[in-house]
Amino acid sequence: MTQNTVEKNSVTLLGLGAMGTALARTWLAAGHPLTVWNRTPARAASLAAEGAKAADSAAAAVATNALVVVCLLDDASVEDALAGTDLAGRDLVNLTTSTPAQARSRAEWARERGARYLDGGIMAVPPMIGVPEAGGYVFYSGSRELFERHRETLVVPAGTVYVGHDAGFAALYDMALLSAMYGMFAGAAHAFALIRKEDIDPASLAPLLADWLVAMAPAVHRTADQLRSGDYTQGVVSNLAMQVAGTPAFLSTAEQQGVSTELLSPYFELMRRRLAEGSGEEDLTGVIDLLVR
Amino acid sequence: MTQNTVEKNSVTLLGLGAMGTALARTWLAAGHPLTVWNRTPARAASLAAEGAKAADSAAAAVATNALVVVCLLDDASVEDALAGTDLAGRDLVNLTTSTPAQARSRAEWARERGARYLDGGIMAVPPMIGVPEAGGYVFYSGSRELFERHRETLVVPAGTVYVGHDAGFAALYDMALLSAMYGMFAGAAHAFALIRKEDIDPASLAPLLADWLVAMAPAVHRTADQLRSGDYTQGVVSNLAMQVAGTPAFLSTAEQQGVSTELLSPYFELMRRRLAEGSGEEDLTGVIDLLVR
Repeated sequence: MTQNTVEKNSVTLLGLGAMGTALARTWLAAGHPLTVWNRTPARAASLAAEGAKAADSAAAAVATNALVVVCLLDDASVEDALAGTDLAGRDLVNLTTSTPAQARSRAEWARERGARYLDGGIMAVPPMIGVPEAGGYVFYSGSRELFERHRETLVVPAGTVYVGHDAGFAALYDMALLSAMYGMFAGAAHAFALIRKEDIDPASLAPLLADWLVAMAPAVHRTADQLRSGDYTQGVVSNLAMQVAGTPAFLSTAEQQGVSTELLSPYFELMRRRLAEGSGEEDLTGVIDLLVR
Repeated sequence: MTQNTVEKNSVTLLGLGAMGTALARTWLAAGHPLTVWNRTPARAASLAAEGAKAADSAAAAVATNALVVVCLLDDASVEDALAGTDLAGRDLVNLTTSTPAQARSRAEWARERGARYLDGGIMAVPPMIGVPEAGGYVFYSGSRELFERHRETLVVPAGTVYVGHDAGFAALYDMALLSAMYGMFAGAAHAFALIRKEDIDPASLAPLLADWLVAMAPAVHRTADQLRSGDYTQGVVSNLAMQVAGTPAFLSTAEQQGVSTELLSPYFELMRRRLAEGSGEEDLTGVIDLLVR
């Protein structure tokens, strides 16, 4: 039996916060030669003990490998860390949380410095990195060529989903999904608040709540179909007029339970505004148009 | 081979809107003798053609069977329909959408008239009634004896979940789950709004969004555990301080995409208020306490 030795792609990683450290460990564990740099050197030293090469400066780290992954606090930190480094010919993968506009500007900035640029939005928390069964993944957008060339390296810490040439799209998808999650969390917070003063164990509500949210989440497919066709009555199950008619019961229930309606009212208000436009036969999808200026 | 003839429980049903009609059909299909009444008689006549007995008045319908199921527009309609009927000795099951306080008052009102009372909150739309694989069910609360006696009849249209002796609990669970659903829909609306002006097919976002919401829904179990223990730092993955630090990127992204932040801001504002109380190490659970007066 011959030993199968495949040379693994070398990686430079700037930024060793919780996420950067998690990324570093998965590349080390998978046998990728890894050069790391962090503004405060203690974390780099700790990873050096695990097999990484700790660079003395960001410039030295960038000079070591063609593939440079950046995972810093924010876009301003990226600017700071990369100032004075030579990015010419580098494949720059920016996993720093950014807005779409920041990602687009950073892509242009990198292009001016002779680097290819790929932006990433991480849909995972550090404990999910390197744990495929946890289901975390990273949205990537920007240079498709860079993405294809380094795909096998990028897939080591988490799954990859390429969402387009526009460097801002990874951040946009990331923000869209996380925004929706905060909406769901807000709804769940209201639900738990409603039972807070009752003799009801929150742990008896939780499985019913989780199952219900899981059962209702696929409604977004119908929303997407309606947005595509422009026909917001397509496949409607409970129309806007009926749903608006039901809203007073939700508000009264909150009042009765001593719960603020501040998380519920803004959506109901948009439903009412859409209904007032004569859209009673529609689904809830028209609310989306009211949000966009 | 002998024919297995089991006599099915007789049912009186008041109210033949979309939901009442769906209920009626499942009982007829399952062989339950059914007496129906509706304020406008056309729908009762149509069900009579399918085998139901159409009563001339609510009083006559109530007099026919011990089990009286009511599925009307709202609590005021229940009051109207049952005025002048003799409820003594009746088993009254009220599936009309009500607030917890209305359900509790209606239970007391029924008790004063010599009836046993069970309140129900239907977690389904009419097309899910009589379709077990659709996963719809009904929350029941109030008389456990009534529930147990008629369980085999009540389970015909949809699954049953008994949530307690307090007649208001079925409505409370119903309102809690539906409120959470509206929160999730509000979040999804924001997500779709973010991509509205981009060259992104909503149908390419939808599966990612649905999967993400499904993956995040089980977070409510951790919330419940924290509410039970009172320790909101228990099992925290990304603490409040970190999450609040991330909120400006969500708001900036919305601004960049021309999307109103009205559905996102109220939850972020509560997160900031909780953080200002010195709860940075906690999970998001403290927001719930801010909602309850």
